[in-house]
Amino acid sequence: MSYRFEAGRLYRMPTHFGPAPGPRQLPADIVVDRSRSPRRLSVAASFLTDEARLERHLPEGFSLAAEPVVTVEFHYMTEIDWLAGRGYTMIHVSWPARFDGMRDRATGRFLAVVWESLADPIITGRDEIGHPKLYADVDAPRQWDGAQICSAGWMGFRFLELSVTDLCTAPIEQAAASSDGTLMLKYVPRTGAWGEHDVRQVTLTPSADPELVVESRQLGSSAVRFNRAAWADLPTMYHVVNALADLPVIEPRGGRVQRSRGGKTYLDQRVLT
Amino acid sequence: MSYRFEAGRLYRMPTHFGPAPGPRQLPADIVVDRSRSPRRLSVAASFLTDEARLERHLPEGFSLAAEPVVTVEFHYMTEIDWLAGRGYTMIHVSWPARFDGMRDRATGRFLAVVWESLADPIITGRDEIGHPKLYADVDAPRQWDGAQICSAGWMGFRFLELSVTDLCTAPIEQAAASSDGTLMLKYVPRTGAWGEHDVRQVTLTPSADPELVVESRQLGSSAVRFNRAAWADLPTMYHVVNALADLPVIEPRGGRVQRSRGGKTYLDQRVLT
Amino acid sequence: MSYRFEAGRLYRMPTHFGPAPGPRQLPADIVVDRSRSPRRLSVAASFLTDEARLERHLPEGFSLAAEPVVTVEFHYMTEIDWLAGRGYTMIHVSWPARFDGMRDRATGRFLAVVWESLADPIITGRDEIGHPKLYADVDAPRQWDGAQICSAGWMGFRFLELSVTDLCTAPIEQAAASSDGTLMLKYVPRTGAWGEHDVRQVTLTPSADPELVVESRQLGSSAVRFNRAAWADLPTMYHVVNALADLPVIEPRGGRVQRSRGGKTYLDQRVLT
Amino acid sequence: MSYRFEAGRLYRMPTHFGPAPGPRQLPADIVVDRSRSPRRLSVAASFLTDEARLERHLPEGFSLAAEPVVTVEFHYMTEIDWLAGRGYTMIHVSWPARFDGMRDRATGRFLAVVWESLADPIITGRDEIGHPKLYADVDAPRQWDGAQICSAGWMGFRFLELSVTDLCTAPIEQAAASSDGTLMLKYVPRTGAWGEHDVRQVTLTPSADPELVVESRQLGSSAVRFNRAAWADLPTMYHVVNALADLPVIEPRGGRVQRSRGGKTYLDQRVLT
Repeated sequence: MSYRFEAGRLYRMPTHFGPAPGPRQLPADIVVDRSRSPRRLSVAASFLTDEARLERHLPEGFSLAAEPVVTVEFHYMTEIDWLAGRGYTMIHVSWPARFDGMRDRATGRFLAVVWESLADPIITGRDEIGHPKLYADVDAPRQWDGAQICSAGWMGFRFLELSVTDLCTAPIEQAAASSDGTLMLKYVPRTGAWGEHDVRQVTLTPSADPELVVESRQLGSSAVRFNRAAWADLPTMYHVVNALADLPVIEPRGGRVQRSRGGKTYLDQRVLT
Repeated sequence: MSYRFEAGRLYRMPTHFGPAPGPRQLPADIVVDRSRSPRRLSVAASFLTDEARLERHLPEGFSLAAEPVVTVEFHYMTEIDWLAGRGYTMIHVSWPARFDGMRDRATGRFLAVVWESLADPIITGRDEIGHPKLYADVDAPRQWDGAQICSAGWMGFRFLELSVTDLCTAPIEQAAASSDGTLMLKYVPRTGAWGEHDVRQVTLTPSADPELVVESRQLGSSAVRFNRAAWADLPTMYHVVNALADLPVIEPRGGRVQRSRGGKTYLDQRVLT
Repeated sequence: MSYRFEAGRLYRMPTHFGPAPGPRQLPADIVVDRSRSPRRLSVAASFLTDEARLERHLPEGFSLAAEPVVTVEFHYMTEIDWLAGRGYTMIHVSWPARFDGMRDRATGRFLAVVWESLADPIITGRDEIGHPKLYADVDAPRQWDGAQICSAGWMGFRFLELSVTDLCTAPIEQAAASSDGTLMLKYVPRTGAWGEHDVRQVTLTPSADPELVVESRQLGSSAVRFNRAAWADLPTMYHVVNALADLPVIEPRGGRVQRSRGGKTYLDQRVLT
Repeated sequence: MSYRFEAGRLYRMPTHFGPAPGPRQLPADIVVDRSRSPRRLSVAASFLTDEARLERHLPEGFSLAAEPVVTVEFHYMTEIDWLAGRGYTMIHVSWPARFDGMRDRATGRFLAVVWESLADPIITGRDEIGHPKLYADVDAPRQWDGAQICSAGWMGFRFLELSVTDLCTAPIEQAAASSDGTLMLKYVPRTGAWGEHDVRQVTLTPSADPELVVESRQLGSSAVRFNRAAWADLPTMYHVVNALADLPVIEPRGGRVQRSRGGKTYLDQRVLT
């Protein structure tokens, strides 16, 4: 007898071995404390760029919601509950945007691309949340000479370098509530009908993350550099890296090093229309 | 101005930087020779298992099409054109199955799970083809003492060991045309409506692969072992590995080591209904 | 003109490009703070074993100096100054011993084997200090369910698993001064005269490490497991792992998780005779 | 009872667990065929440089023996018997030199530095042979668009890029017997007497390698590039890479791609005086 899908349970490919464990579905006997996991070192750097060039990387229905400031953030995560205490690193690239849909409107952070150092959350994030995740080898974070230094590459080609220098401790501020959250575009191509899609929808992560506790915060000067790649250097994503490398750095807008604990599972992710 | 999707071009998340290069969409100036790429070392081992247990891992509409023989294959690929000459490894787990749909019928190899050692083809394969791909660290192939030895793990936990021993050269035979191809189930969960799906469809890779040339072929005795895992060992896929570990090995059915070149891009992949 | 060695400068192979930068020789313009670097998470577990079996792994001139208690310690180090803020992991295996030489006597910790996750300190440590260092892939430390979990392997074969559970915060105690330090045997084989040696000498790291500051300390229950290996699993060190696996665990003697900063450069390392 | 060293057996640190298995000492029950192992893909590229600058990287007693032509070779090895069928990659940097010692004279290839992608042969080679080996992450070889492409880095910093293009099949020629072999300098620093050494001796690998069989050979145009590094990029070897980067490429001298099998164990390595 073939199997049936169990109602109300999350599945991912391959579906043939039962509901899939992951960040939003843990085994029944696993108890987690969302206020403790993950532990996170976040290093962010921002720069002002050209408005017209940045808009070209916004999907239909979106417009810039503020100054064209690009933020690149490395999140080095450890003690992740759904990985039984292991860790991995995320890199977020975002800028402020507004979505005007048929029904919904939202203003927030447009998450343009995510790189991660582990395939498992890439799979769960793309499928379940619509996170635009790609893979990168992320070097371990370096703290040296008063600076926090971050870098990422793929198969030996280093495509991203970021540093925050002249670090000064800053008060821990609560995230401003002026944003509806993080916006992204989920897209799944249609098999066999090449160029068409099965899913193309705007999804939103609401701002609220009550379990997240910021433990320390430093501010500093920032530098971000995307290194232009030939197709042969990054054959699945040279177009992404080069588009970001082509954004002029008109003015650095500072950096931030933050340590935090806890966070949500994104079960509040929802589709906007 | 926001961007528009170009008609007839393949996109993947993130879509904001233009059509996505990949196995089925190369830059216009890249010339490839499908009869040369990839170079492939394939190591396969099969075993007879219990029919009733195996059927539990077939989706609705599928039934076993022959003896319940599970085949595990490692494909070590190099000189891959769409990776500019790089390589990676695939592991296929399959058994014979028949699909009876509303309209379509097909008999062939049911591809139950794929592990790959590189995130990029995992992303393209899941999205574009419906390949049920997960990530594994695959050890380099070992040829030692007349045996070909393969193994794979995740974060230090070795979950799969396979070997083919007593290797003897065999004639190169053409793939039997008795199969319609490879069958799989594409599944994409629905964001926000947890437990529901946006895509659930049977897809077929037709058998024909005219560019594939087998260069050598050896047969031998096989051994396959899936090592049972605790959730903490493989927190995103212990259920897959344990289901396979629970399939009894009633009888080994031999192994095969094959070297080949060339192959298709899966643009012939199609949805069955 | 060929080069000359500069007096008073440290060299390592290859010597042809000048004095070698490393933990004991930094470029002149690099300023470090030994009280800050490295940051260290140390996880230790001990067990009582059989005295006669343990003594077989002591070189001539050495004897057990206390109960036959083996201690295995993982040191996850970050923010290492001589690596410009990078990190790596050391694993120490030691037991109490006494050395009675022609001239010198010392009692302390006999460092029987060290594994490290980075080749660079393996080279500097073997050559300059006489550290008996081998390479291992060390998994990132896992903190999960009140336990600290450590593991190490080589090419996919996990040979060492260690955990400390039921962790309780403990007062920070100063290292007891009852020990002269850490003892080891430096050995360099003689090229061409196979089986002979160029160097075979006992070296000592004196106990004092005034820059080391322990920041926190937890105690708990310990478990250590060395997994027996075939030659084909660990062809350069199965003899080491199996010798340790063969030591019976008569009684666990507890574990410790400690966080610290700072430490010395081992320039106080000296040869005993 | 402490252990005794067994006469005539090879030891390496740690010596406490018995004679050390390795390339020159296999377990008694392991049978190898030196004419089959290893399988080797060798990619070499040469360039003419400045004589005076090159001589500065020759030790005392050495002089240039021919034109100042530097050769960089990647050797991708698989099916290595002493690693039970596993593989790793060596990078050799050499130029022609002559050694005039107190007693011995020899002319051959001066092996200035070796990088390897695996710590185990680094340890055995440095200790037993005097190979000047350092660690590098070596990317898998890429064959693409009629070129063979090689690269190496360390912790994400790519320091060496080499390619051989316009490949043409060439006859397999026997290695010219005009050379006495490969010359190198073994050096072991003295512990505690910083700046002094315990071993500093010239060692020679005689040319003869009767088990090596070249299977194919291609010639082409070559390009080699060492990328200059800051100390923070390569804190243990920026001096080596920068010295090589500073050698002017006066003229490329061609490249070679060779496939071979078999080879010796270096038990013929000897010290010159």
